[in-house]
Amino acid sequence: MLDVTLLGTGGVRPLPDRFLTSLLVKYRGREILIDCGEGTQTAMRKYKKSLQEIDLICLTHFHGDHILGLPGLLMSMGLEGREKTLTVAGPKGVGEIVSLFRQLGPVLFPVRFIEVHDWQEFYREDSLSITAFSALHSTVCFGYRFDVSRSPKFDRERAEALQIPLKYWNRLQHGETVAADDKIYYPEDVLGGPRRGIRLSYYTDSRPTEHIAAMVEGSDLLIGEAMYPDDREKARERGHSSGTETAVLAKNAGVRELWLTHYSPSFVNPGECAEQLRSIFADTVLPSDGMEKTLRFSE
Amino acid sequence: MLDVTLLGTGGVRPLPDRFLTSLLVKYRGREILIDCGEGTQTAMRKYKKSLQEIDLICLTHFHGDHILGLPGLLMSMGLEGREKTLTVAGPKGVGEIVSLFRQLGPVLFPVRFIEVHDWQEFYREDSLSITAFSALHSTVCFGYRFDVSRSPKFDRERAEALQIPLKYWNRLQHGETVAADDKIYYPEDVLGGPRRGIRLSYYTDSRPTEHIAAMVEGSDLLIGEAMYPDDREKARERGHSSGTETAVLAKNAGVRELWLTHYSPSFVNPGECAEQLRSIFADTVLPSDGMEKTLRFSE
Repeated sequence: MLDVTLLGTGGVRPLPDRFLTSLLVKYRGREILIDCGEGTQTAMRKYKKSLQEIDLICLTHFHGDHILGLPGLLMSMGLEGREKTLTVAGPKGVGEIVSLFRQLGPVLFPVRFIEVHDWQEFYREDSLSITAFSALHSTVCFGYRFDVSRSPKFDRERAEALQIPLKYWNRLQHGETVAADDKIYYPEDVLGGPRRGIRLSYYTDSRPTEHIAAMVEGSDLLIGEAMYPDDREKARERGHSSGTETAVLAKNAGVRELWLTHYSPSFVNPGECAEQLRSIFADTVLPSDGMEKTLRFSE
Repeated sequence: MLDVTLLGTGGVRPLPDRFLTSLLVKYRGREILIDCGEGTQTAMRKYKKSLQEIDLICLTHFHGDHILGLPGLLMSMGLEGREKTLTVAGPKGVGEIVSLFRQLGPVLFPVRFIEVHDWQEFYREDSLSITAFSALHSTVCFGYRFDVSRSPKFDRERAEALQIPLKYWNRLQHGETVAADDKIYYPEDVLGGPRRGIRLSYYTDSRPTEHIAAMVEGSDLLIGEAMYPDDREKARERGHSSGTETAVLAKNAGVRELWLTHYSPSFVNPGECAEQLRSIFADTVLPSDGMEKTLRFSE
């Protein structure tokens, strides 16, 4: 399962009651943060998240409202005694950004970086993989997709019928072929078909493209941009998406649920657009800061 | 008069209910900001202050909790269409810091910088002057003193007795000698003695030194550090002041009122120490964020 916390929902500038857009994903004790605008460390404290559990920070792009909280976050991690390595992923140039921010700290723990590319799976831990995909903004920008794979169901009855010793079941269950007792036991003999995992996708600061729709297809939860409620022209001029455009994309991509985020400071009451946007895509949510959800395997 | 707003009272790390220490001073429509940690632009919005009126930003030193809000503030000023020049004052190296932060913006309006030195009056506008003074921290650090001078009282009766034409009164009042009508009118003939102005002093991140006490002497309001309530040893180890030490300094310096600030994140309820500190210096205040006061000429 994936625990998802939308730490902030604001674009461009932090507001007294709205942190800048940032997403925290927790998987098996590891935290992964997407974007880190000014105030993200404060949002984490507000929503009782540990800075020290962060394993990976993914930056969508290098505009200030997505990165200027990073030096303070690194500094606070260091002051709290962090020693373990942090990884920062982002577009080409992420190494220079990290080096620059480390100087402001100072930051004494190791920080490594990953330059991501379109359609690149750059992170894999246990059953979780993260894939970057190109967004379309005024500068190089990426979205991120989280996939938790689910192992096929183990068919106990069949294993018993085939008289496979109990001690080999676990290995077979994990897809391992077992050669023992002068026999070969194949996992496919005792495993069911592929099962749906969990998919979470996130992008902001982008026009709604077919490429994005393809990359986020079938997500259990898509978190996408609504810089403006319904102003396609303004969104287009500035390389953003309106809520309407993102609701259309969510519908076309067959996602299960859509959360909108990265509201312009001028977009004061996003909730007022809920009805209109749900007429396009029924499972649209217009969250406030701190919205949380646990994504689980569906039966 | 000077309008003083303590935007934040926190040291080291911003907390959900405590912005990092930053002071906003307003004088005749101009705003002057001291220090700009992460979240200062949000505090300014919360307390309804205009980013665009900022004329000067004074940095005490370059530790992250005092400067990491500057890139975001510069960016927001630019996004709001600022064109007029901003001045940033601080220790040697302030030019490099400003250059670095401008790159993160981008910032298109002019930013000039001033390297301040001990006991240097580096700013003068109308009747306001600002003087930097050396603090004693783990790195080069300055406090700032604001002085508003008050012109001597104009003695109308004496001006009438001397038959000075009314049209020259204003110039005389402003200290100008007037040569006219084959006569010379001297300001000292119609002006009273020197009058007390307004003095506001501010320092954080420092041991309490005699030099500071001398520089802030007679302040109407001193804003000083209370990193810890009463732990002299810990404060000394880290180059800070305890509340007790600063109350003693305020008493020795003969200030009229003391506000404490830059509380450690572990110093949860500063108000609890009020009684103890007031037993040292009666006019001690332990503010929360957003505390405001207007300093006026006293009669």
